[in-house]
Amino acid sequence: MCRWIAYQGEPTFLDALVAEPAHSLIAQSLCSVEAKVVTNGDGFGIGWYGDRDRPGVYREVRPAWSDENLRNLCHQVKASVFFAHVRASTGPAIARANCHPFTVGRLMFMHNGQIGQFCAIKRRVEAMIPDDLYHHRSGTTDSEALFLAAFAHGLAADPIGGMAATLHAVHGLMLKAGLREALRFTACLTDGRDLYAFRWASDGRAPTLYWRQNHGNLVVVSEPLDGDRTQWSEVPQGCVLVARSGRPAVLHGFDATVTGTAKAA
Amino acid sequence: MCRWIAYQGEPTFLDALVAEPAHSLIAQSLCSVEAKVVTNGDGFGIGWYGDRDRPGVYREVRPAWSDENLRNLCHQVKASVFFAHVRASTGPAIARANCHPFTVGRLMFMHNGQIGQFCAIKRRVEAMIPDDLYHHRSGTTDSEALFLAAFAHGLAADPIGGMAATLHAVHGLMLKAGLREALRFTACLTDGRDLYAFRWASDGRAPTLYWRQNHGNLVVVSEPLDGDRTQWSEVPQGCVLVARSGRPAVLHGFDATVTGTAKAA
Amino acid sequence: MCRWIAYQGEPTFLDALVAEPAHSLIAQSLCSVEAKVVTNGDGFGIGWYGDRDRPGVYREVRPAWSDENLRNLCHQVKASVFFAHVRASTGPAIARANCHPFTVGRLMFMHNGQIGQFCAIKRRVEAMIPDDLYHHRSGTTDSEALFLAAFAHGLAADPIGGMAATLHAVHGLMLKAGLREALRFTACLTDGRDLYAFRWASDGRAPTLYWRQNHGNLVVVSEPLDGDRTQWSEVPQGCVLVARSGRPAVLHGFDATVTGTAKAA
Amino acid sequence: MCRWIAYQGEPTFLDALVAEPAHSLIAQSLCSVEAKVVTNGDGFGIGWYGDRDRPGVYREVRPAWSDENLRNLCHQVKASVFFAHVRASTGPAIARANCHPFTVGRLMFMHNGQIGQFCAIKRRVEAMIPDDLYHHRSGTTDSEALFLAAFAHGLAADPIGGMAATLHAVHGLMLKAGLREALRFTACLTDGRDLYAFRWASDGRAPTLYWRQNHGNLVVVSEPLDGDRTQWSEVPQGCVLVARSGRPAVLHGFDATVTGTAKAA
Repeated sequence: MCRWIAYQGEPTFLDALVAEPAHSLIAQSLCSVEAKVVTNGDGFGIGWYGDRDRPGVYREVRPAWSDENLRNLCHQVKASVFFAHVRASTGPAIARANCHPFTVGRLMFMHNGQIGQFCAIKRRVEAMIPDDLYHHRSGTTDSEALFLAAFAHGLAADPIGGMAATLHAVHGLMLKAGLREALRFTACLTDGRDLYAFRWASDGRAPTLYWRQNHGNLVVVSEPLDGDRTQWSEVPQGCVLVARSGRPAVLHGFDATVTGTAKAA
Repeated sequence: MCRWIAYQGEPTFLDALVAEPAHSLIAQSLCSVEAKVVTNGDGFGIGWYGDRDRPGVYREVRPAWSDENLRNLCHQVKASVFFAHVRASTGPAIARANCHPFTVGRLMFMHNGQIGQFCAIKRRVEAMIPDDLYHHRSGTTDSEALFLAAFAHGLAADPIGGMAATLHAVHGLMLKAGLREALRFTACLTDGRDLYAFRWASDGRAPTLYWRQNHGNLVVVSEPLDGDRTQWSEVPQGCVLVARSGRPAVLHGFDATVTGTAKAA
Repeated sequence: MCRWIAYQGEPTFLDALVAEPAHSLIAQSLCSVEAKVVTNGDGFGIGWYGDRDRPGVYREVRPAWSDENLRNLCHQVKASVFFAHVRASTGPAIARANCHPFTVGRLMFMHNGQIGQFCAIKRRVEAMIPDDLYHHRSGTTDSEALFLAAFAHGLAADPIGGMAATLHAVHGLMLKAGLREALRFTACLTDGRDLYAFRWASDGRAPTLYWRQNHGNLVVVSEPLDGDRTQWSEVPQGCVLVARSGRPAVLHGFDATVTGTAKAA
Repeated sequence: MCRWIAYQGEPTFLDALVAEPAHSLIAQSLCSVEAKVVTNGDGFGIGWYGDRDRPGVYREVRPAWSDENLRNLCHQVKASVFFAHVRASTGPAIARANCHPFTVGRLMFMHNGQIGQFCAIKRRVEAMIPDDLYHHRSGTTDSEALFLAAFAHGLAADPIGGMAATLHAVHGLMLKAGLREALRFTACLTDGRDLYAFRWASDGRAPTLYWRQNHGNLVVVSEPLDGDRTQWSEVPQGCVLVARSGRPAVLHGFDATVTGTAKAA
């Protein structure tokens, strides 16, 4: 289980969300409140869209709370769309390649949750990754495998439908293999303009997800950044929050157990 | 505040204490029970005496719980005297040079506690370090400074008296500078044969220290490695546990507020 | 192209070969003489057999020349069989999981060379890895993939035949895919007792390999550790040096282009 | 001996100098041409002035050539004044705190060269550091000590005079201690607007320094970034290149052996 933040809105310094709030993401890395594990010290990553075609990414294996480079970068870098993620490994090694966010071209993805008993179907999930992205797989996490596999299910053209189809397929593999653990998916995807925040699990117990939108500035988080709970709305189980650039974020139902449902969103 | 383990006895694999117990040092790095801070993820170190003149040392900035090299080494290395330490920084940077244990020749030292408001007297404490050891200072912690400064107070010839005189002198600097925070010192020193475990603080509130000796095998710890509290004795405030090689460990009073007291021990 | 050392003989401190010789492996990491690239600074690893069932391994992403932990361990650790490897990446990321040696149970493997244009057939090479070892794949190198794939070709029971069959199969994939670059393989394998050092390439241009055996102590190296060339014999192209525990090392022909040839060895 | 680049001019992406040129700083980290040592793989750092009061800094212990974060940042970050430095240690440990550039408030400094036999006078050089900056000392290099000591000699108000006075004082300590090695100083200083590039050595053999200014964009380098030597001018021994913001860079004599000389500049 991990903790993450996504932002979309007016250009903002990353540290306004990552480092400064009372319960900032860096604070959560040392002591999260709503996660199953308290400490999220198994590496971290930030990703942001600047003046270049592709997003910038900085990922490191040290805990977020102890990396002076992270504080320094978050103090300097300003972006209108960015992600930040602190990791609590569910098994895969502590390595930069296993830190979120992951990117393919302009698309950026981060995840909290897991494919239960991933080892048992890892080979089959990786088999879904399209040939042209296979060499792109650089780590060993279930999260990166899900993201890359989603390109075989139309992620690039239809983010919500592609993700639903991928989760449906992976869950099918899990059932076929007789696995008992759940597939849990609280994740975020963006192309630098539109942003999609998913909360879904095969057992209806996806990790928490909250959002807040003031004056068009959207913040989506694993857990609130401060004690003012009136500001934060929960993204319900089985939903995706869709934030098209310049428009208010809206909630849609998201169900990966039934194919095609998601496409309706 | 940190957590540490010291061992003296029959040759033992390090992981028997560092990794295997229910509440092993690696477990404590993620979740300590008796420390002021729960997480001790700011680097770690192990030191052991093998076939060479000088102790081996392995120190790294990653959290102990996530370092596969640490587990691997602790599984392979066997020693009759060893130290292991997980760090929770009280300020100084997360760097290998700031990880315990510290060594000078055959002497090895580790510490839990702090010189309160160290920055205010850092210069004066470092001024105590003898010329021939000044270049040996490789980090910025109060702990390393205390250890090196102790050589100016006779540490090499008289470990207990030297340490008491050093603490007395440093506490004098603190008083003279009008500092209000305390000097707290729960520390361990060895030359690879004899072992000294100190618990003393200027305000009588030194971090916890426990010990257990079975069949001549001594384990000294910040907090017990398992739930069987009957096995563990506390080292009281103002005491030093002295374990000369091959002899039962004994407790002596240790008071650095009055010069000379310690020497009586 | 990388540099490596393998040792089999009386228990010896690792630094006798890794750090002390004029042209030690650490020296070669900064400045190798016979390699295509001068610098081998993309991580390193050591592996040794001690008192435990499985070999100890220490791998790190820093250059060998700058890691004080490496020097310290090599000064302390003594073994009768050990490997040491400094890496110059041919593409895959600098990560611990991409550092040699690799282990499966008691077997240990390291490699210098490459599968030319590996990306083009990576998927197919990984498809050869047996199911029970698939989750064991933790990095992205061609070397680790070769090692794991070899278990599908009988490596555990027949090290030479298994390796020949694997190289034959991989080379077949390369030809089928129309790749023009060569498959080059200067590698070492051991179970902690017997040691096999291979030098073979599909174009007859495998990286250099030398050996020396004095009083039963065998040293196999990418390039000599000192200037005394009379001490060192070259392992010829298309050969495997076989060193069964306690017996003189002997050279056999090794040809992976024709199946079955190797088995004759 | 290290390699560095300084830039002052129109906002430019860092990778235009750090990564893209044929003989970019990253290329020099692996294989420099004019340095006494070929490899500059002992860590690196970049520093730049963005929208904040203080410069951003990213320093890491891995070689510049192997750090994907460095490439990524240099691709994203744009600045009108920036420094980049790759280190070849002359002794002090490979640690982030020993990587250049160093900063105090808005001032940023990097250095190539050394105080010969620094260990012998380290204590006396550090004694020059003003009280309010003493805690700011976070590493063990001669370079950082020089920079901090310079604040005691008026660096903040008079960069050239302050630096000359500091070098004069340090050289005096060297002579007094009977040291035979030279003090060599090829260094750069900026406040984010004006830039000073020094080349001076007590034995007249300071490391190389070149500069190029096109359309107001100034590049100062340890060695040229490309083969077109007509573009690059050497900064002569005993000179400082002064580039006030918006004005052409000019050379002045700089002699630290005679106090006061520099102030004339």
